[in-house]
Amino acid sequence: MKAEILTIGDEILIGQITNTNSVWIAQELNLMGIRIVHMASVADDEEAIVKAFDDALTRADFVFITGGLGPTKDDITKKTFSKYFGAELIMDEDVLKHVSSFFIKRGKEVTEINRNQALIPKGGTVIHNKNGTAPGMWMKKNKTIFISMPGVPYEMKIMMRDIILPKIKSENNLPHIYHKTVLTNGIGESALSELIESWEDNLVTKNIKLAYLPQPGMVRLRLSTSGENKDLLKKNIDEEIEKLKAIIDTYIFGYENYGEETPSLASIVSQLLRENKQTLALAESCTGGYVSSLFTGIAGASDIFKGAIVPYTNKAKHELLQVDESVFTTVGAVSKECVEQLAQNIREKFDSDFALSISGIAGPTGGTAEKPVGTVWIAVASKEKTLAFKFIFGDIRQVNILMSANFALNILRKFILKSI
Amino acid sequence: MKAEILTIGDEILIGQITNTNSVWIAQELNLMGIRIVHMASVADDEEAIVKAFDDALTRADFVFITGGLGPTKDDITKKTFSKYFGAELIMDEDVLKHVSSFFIKRGKEVTEINRNQALIPKGGTVIHNKNGTAPGMWMKKNKTIFISMPGVPYEMKIMMRDIILPKIKSENNLPHIYHKTVLTNGIGESALSELIESWEDNLVTKNIKLAYLPQPGMVRLRLSTSGENKDLLKKNIDEEIEKLKAIIDTYIFGYENYGEETPSLASIVSQLLRENKQTLALAESCTGGYVSSLFTGIAGASDIFKGAIVPYTNKAKHELLQVDESVFTTVGAVSKECVEQLAQNIREKFDSDFALSISGIAGPTGGTAEKPVGTVWIAVASKEKTLAFKFIFGDIRQVNILMSANFALNILRKFILKSI
Repeated sequence: MKAEILTIGDEILIGQITNTNSVWIAQELNLMGIRIVHMASVADDEEAIVKAFDDALTRADFVFITGGLGPTKDDITKKTFSKYFGAELIMDEDVLKHVSSFFIKRGKEVTEINRNQALIPKGGTVIHNKNGTAPGMWMKKNKTIFISMPGVPYEMKIMMRDIILPKIKSENNLPHIYHKTVLTNGIGESALSELIESWEDNLVTKNIKLAYLPQPGMVRLRLSTSGENKDLLKKNIDEEIEKLKAIIDTYIFGYENYGEETPSLASIVSQLLRENKQTLALAESCTGGYVSSLFTGIAGASDIFKGAIVPYTNKAKHELLQVDESVFTTVGAVSKECVEQLAQNIREKFDSDFALSISGIAGPTGGTAEKPVGTVWIAVASKEKTLAFKFIFGDIRQVNILMSANFALNILRKFILKSI
Repeated sequence: MKAEILTIGDEILIGQITNTNSVWIAQELNLMGIRIVHMASVADDEEAIVKAFDDALTRADFVFITGGLGPTKDDITKKTFSKYFGAELIMDEDVLKHVSSFFIKRGKEVTEINRNQALIPKGGTVIHNKNGTAPGMWMKKNKTIFISMPGVPYEMKIMMRDIILPKIKSENNLPHIYHKTVLTNGIGESALSELIESWEDNLVTKNIKLAYLPQPGMVRLRLSTSGENKDLLKKNIDEEIEKLKAIIDTYIFGYENYGEETPSLASIVSQLLRENKQTLALAESCTGGYVSSLFTGIAGASDIFKGAIVPYTNKAKHELLQVDESVFTTVGAVSKECVEQLAQNIREKFDSDFALSISGIAGPTGGTAEKPVGTVWIAVASKEKTLAFKFIFGDIRQVNILMSANFALNILRKFILKSI
């Protein structure tokens, strides 16, 4: 099966937004064993859209289209769709009901423009958009299926996961594909590749491909394979991961299973705490609330997360978290002493089982010869024990914040597991 | 002048990397007044590349091609280039010298594969790649210029900035282009479009295009135009923005100027505080540290940001921020009373000029008939005044957090400006 991804919208062509929808769709299709043969972005322009449709018709079994479904005048995908398939636009009562309730629920009037969102090309299959007002559409021309979705990522993704991908799976006999991704922290891409070189060289004998997927504070290793025997594919990959574990176990913090989202370190830690019925509190200085937002972004956070303090000044560290004033006059706020006191005191304040504290120089300024930009101290504490660790990351503020968060979360994970 | 951007490489099509090269090239060309009419990504496959070249020939004056120039077997762009233009590959002595010195400098042997990087289609203009070994190429077919560059971003960008863009500028009489984007909060895309309908209809008379760019908690309105007289373009857009301001002033929180990045609400508020030498503290419940992380993500945050507390439990709201216990037993934590007390008390605790507090039901569970998921209370406080506002957003946790943050930041902005 071959697919094509088409993005419609001037905002892509003028470079105003990065095309993350196409990347996500490509990943999902690839996981299912559908090969993407072409990706294109065209303007909100009828002629350009029709030319792209015509080209896709000759190349692909499926065309995934995002964008141009908004209610405003610049969005012409639906009109063009209707024309291309020779199908007049008719009001879909179910969609109209959904659109109306969407506005009514928010205490807003349902206008003519809103109502027009329920117009669908005749003969098309509506794809319900539970997070928005622009429905998706599924149409067939010759042997090619055209699927039109809104460009808003969280609307598109839910439609794909809940409706479109299951429908494609059930209607087609796709080859078996199997992936598993090993999540590592604490070692860079090139050091990792040297460490696992001979293991990696041997993968080819089992028809397994390896991809290194680095991001700040973590390297993901994706093992993928395809073939006829589903059980064998899984067995081969599981065996290789066991061998890999023997080499780099200390760096592995989790796994991404086939067809699932990459679990974040925060979600892995949350899950551990939930299983143990334990709780957490944070004191964040240089990460400034970012780690807290990772935990609270997860549904059900209040079961395990008691809260955080971001003491961004020395005064706040002292007054709100009782760090000794002598710490600031001797070793400074970016120090073992400071993070240890922060971790111990935030834990007591929130009466949590565990606490994590972070203090560092995020940059771009504020570094010294002794403590360059990127210097970060991290501490973890329980009632019985406090541990502190020092890191020197890089020069870029945003990367230092991400690295600090990922390293801190992995330290916390190991601390909860009593492996440090 | 019209351009097309073509990316060659399997890694884009399987979703392994996000296509940031195309975004960057689009931005640069757009700034010069060159319109991008098409973007595409194809595999390392001769047939697909030739089809893309043929299509581009009919549409574009310039085709910017990245990728597929590496020395390994999977990279076939150069071979395809040579075939497409009927030009044999010949060794370029200057490039060979550069490639050789590149490896010698790094203490490496110059292999046959490396030497082949200096092969160039006859008649093509070499574009020097000072950061790598794969040279760029500039070829013409009919009236279309094809420019092939390596996919490595920092190699490609330097070639564009130093050589390609100046060459295009000097050889062509380009039209002027002008954009300005109006940033709004507090009104949805469709309500906004109705409010400004007659203004929008009139834009065509001044050759101005309008685009709606919605994201959670904000709609950006981009006005763009092109023509001969640079000053007139700017004047036309500025005049229309003045007229727009008369209609929707209350929703406008900022502008994105031509060639600059979109300023975030947090950066706009930070700038206001910096100018006024004022400071801020936050009490975040449902946003859980997210707003704090937006402020602390900006370099120099400590000038204006004193800190935050994330009191994720009622106990923490009471013990750390002195919210009356009676609040929880009567109106609950998601209430006017709670956010007012949070804002007042966090301001006192950090001794800041302003404070912002947020308490809501982020979801997906925890809603009631009276307070559905998405109900959020936001308060702002100064020494003299406290104001609270209630919103009902939607069902999705992550979107509710984003919406809460953007609405809260805009309320704070207006509060600092004394416009509420």
